[in-house]
Amino acid sequence: MFGDNLDRIVAAIERNYEADEIFFTKPGRQFPNRAIIKQMLKDIRRVLFPGYFGEEMLSPYTTPTYFIGDMLMNIERVLRQQVVLALKYTDEQGRCTADIEIQAADICTRFFDQLPDIQRTLLTDVQALFDGDPAAESKEEVIFAYPGLYAIYVYRIAHVLHQLQVPLLPRTMTELAHSGTGIDIGAGADIGEYFFIDHGTGVVIGETTKIGKNVKLYQGVTLGALSTRGGQRLSGVKRHPTIEDNVTIYSNASVLGGETVIGEGSVIAGSAFVTASVPPHSRVSVKSQEVSLRQPGERD
Amino acid sequence: MFGDNLDRIVAAIERNYEADEIFFTKPGRQFPNRAIIKQMLKDIRRVLFPGYFGEEMLSPYTTPTYFIGDMLMNIERVLRQQVVLALKYTDEQGRCTADIEIQAADICTRFFDQLPDIQRTLLTDVQALFDGDPAAESKEEVIFAYPGLYAIYVYRIAHVLHQLQVPLLPRTMTELAHSGTGIDIGAGADIGEYFFIDHGTGVVIGETTKIGKNVKLYQGVTLGALSTRGGQRLSGVKRHPTIEDNVTIYSNASVLGGETVIGEGSVIAGSAFVTASVPPHSRVSVKSQEVSLRQPGERD
Amino acid sequence: MFGDNLDRIVAAIERNYEADEIFFTKPGRQFPNRAIIKQMLKDIRRVLFPGYFGEEMLSPYTTPTYFIGDMLMNIERVLRQQVVLALKYTDEQGRCTADIEIQAADICTRFFDQLPDIQRTLLTDVQALFDGDPAAESKEEVIFAYPGLYAIYVYRIAHVLHQLQVPLLPRTMTELAHSGTGIDIGAGADIGEYFFIDHGTGVVIGETTKIGKNVKLYQGVTLGALSTRGGQRLSGVKRHPTIEDNVTIYSNASVLGGETVIGEGSVIAGSAFVTASVPPHSRVSVKSQEVSLRQPGERD
Repeated sequence: MFGDNLDRIVAAIERNYEADEIFFTKPGRQFPNRAIIKQMLKDIRRVLFPGYFGEEMLSPYTTPTYFIGDMLMNIERVLRQQVVLALKYTDEQGRCTADIEIQAADICTRFFDQLPDIQRTLLTDVQALFDGDPAAESKEEVIFAYPGLYAIYVYRIAHVLHQLQVPLLPRTMTELAHSGTGIDIGAGADIGEYFFIDHGTGVVIGETTKIGKNVKLYQGVTLGALSTRGGQRLSGVKRHPTIEDNVTIYSNASVLGGETVIGEGSVIAGSAFVTASVPPHSRVSVKSQEVSLRQPGERD
Repeated sequence: MFGDNLDRIVAAIERNYEADEIFFTKPGRQFPNRAIIKQMLKDIRRVLFPGYFGEEMLSPYTTPTYFIGDMLMNIERVLRQQVVLALKYTDEQGRCTADIEIQAADICTRFFDQLPDIQRTLLTDVQALFDGDPAAESKEEVIFAYPGLYAIYVYRIAHVLHQLQVPLLPRTMTELAHSGTGIDIGAGADIGEYFFIDHGTGVVIGETTKIGKNVKLYQGVTLGALSTRGGQRLSGVKRHPTIEDNVTIYSNASVLGGETVIGEGSVIAGSAFVTASVPPHSRVSVKSQEVSLRQPGERD
Repeated sequence: MFGDNLDRIVAAIERNYEADEIFFTKPGRQFPNRAIIKQMLKDIRRVLFPGYFGEEMLSPYTTPTYFIGDMLMNIERVLRQQVVLALKYTDEQGRCTADIEIQAADICTRFFDQLPDIQRTLLTDVQALFDGDPAAESKEEVIFAYPGLYAIYVYRIAHVLHQLQVPLLPRTMTELAHSGTGIDIGAGADIGEYFFIDHGTGVVIGETTKIGKNVKLYQGVTLGALSTRGGQRLSGVKRHPTIEDNVTIYSNASVLGGETVIGEGSVIAGSAFVTASVPPHSRVSVKSQEVSLRQPGERD
């Protein structure tokens, strides 16, 4: 029965393909591979925090050199391949493969140069999450189980690749974290150390956001744009806020606008909606949201 | 040690089974399989956008006929099996298997007839996401990585099956997308082309919602019911809003109620809570949410 | 090229390891395994609701004894191993393995003793979700596809382990559910039967929350703390609210504070922000959020 229809449907889909070339990836080019990128993120995390996510049983009494070296060699090879695919895919100048491969190797070198720094910064994030959450049993639990730390980890990796102007991969990475945690951090955002996100579902941090040190965000916080009617014309324009050091923003609050600055040490209460700058050490809360309380017997 | 207890616990669970037949699936019937449905959604996406999610390297210079035909034959077989399972499982008239299989084949034929249209509509969604998000590098990135597009894609597939009155599968599909993206679109909702969801976590679109063309939604937007106290008695009643063409609804806004109509071209600001209709070209914002700003030195 | 750098980067990572022992898991100890815990949660669910998630085709006309017994024996062995790992990992008294194994076996016995009760309670949750959601086709669909039920199921399992003072595993379990559903229920929370969560993305239920029977929550509801500035000093302190029986809390509302009690039978409207107790049978809504409506022609 389906056979009768099949030819017609195949032909219709082929006509769609012909009508817009975007249905196909570009001829002779290959897209990066999401599953490989996901596995690479797991492997990098095993190097940064060995034993939490794999069978390796390192300790101060072992020699971790071989483990790190072996893992990094493999990770570098995989990352370089994916960077080559991404560069080739987005190349508009018809560069030869050898040139692209040299650039990819250079990007990888720069990336790995920053890996020990990322590792140290993540340690401050672990500390922030432990210090800030009374429900945390231990720092190990934070490393092993906290979605906030996972999202921050992926962001810190993706951010370095974004700074190195690698196309496609940073967004693919942050969307993997977004899918697993509900936390959506633009790879272009600039975020200081000792960063804290608790629960985290619904957090959105736009790609031009600037966040200082020791900032705490709770679930549902949007650091976003005031308007995106400008669409692609706004690409690259700072349209997300600046959050200075030691700021806390409670759940479901929104801070919007590229010129909005939340001054150092401020506290933004839950569900607040902020579209203008506030000076340092402010406490912003919704002024007595008028609550209507009715008892049974009163009109529904 | 556990052996001593095991018999007692097994017996208690058996007694639970006996106390309510819902613990079992229905005798002699088999439930659809989530993993198979998930794989099928991946395969359909590979046909609609070849090269982005698989190894196939199609291009205008190849003949995609065989790829499409081969993929669709397999997809049709799998879909038909799952439709048969779903129809059999929910059958209340004791229909014979042959009748159900004929109905399933017919449903599949109708489904695939609409697939080229779905593909064309998705192209408008890709364009909407690219046009509307300054952070989008390219339309390819939208197709490959954007959770909004994935949720819309799954919705458009599930919606056709919902219209064809297939039980169980549409909800299973939309919940797969919900789990991966935090975007919950009822398969029954009616959504026009050039649809845009950015970030998306927390978006809920109720099953009787009606959405026009060129509508933009941001994270945390609820298009919901005013009350669900009526429970199952409200089944099938329109209880979610109507959003006309060219409307933008910013993050964390709620629009509630089956008689609420957001007129054409309106803009609903972030965190607004709307329970009544607004005329076309309205701009709805929360009137100066009174923000309380305290400085250090003032009383806490 | 990378070879030149590799030694330097390996050495830098080794120095990081040496600078803080938290980078390693503890010497000679092994962390529980997330993938094994995830599979175990699937297997327990197959025992509680056979046929929905596996190939077993039980029915009132079969003898389910062998299926239950076989599954439970395997689940007990896996759970016991993971409990041993968690107890060993967090042991601070240098207890011998035999002692820990005896404790783990005892914990497992107590856990399985409660499994039939959990199963009966989940039946009330299924009923609540079906009764409360007009979009639910059937109770089977609720069991098979509803993220709310999955999150509640995982919470009920994790809660028993939390009460038995098992470290690490309860949080690992609730974070698995959080990742899959966007619903974050602290394993320490105390939640009565006939519990309802619809859509659910963004729901946060803090670990010292107390929830009565027949309570309904919608997406984005936070039952949270007023402030967590106290950090680890607040560990164990009741800082999340009490929700009495028969309360409904609509989407994106927040109820905060350890002394906040929502009286029996109350209804909290969508987007309400509640930080003080309300008496029984209250209806709390945001008093006429002032909406600013502008038409074209008026100033932007």
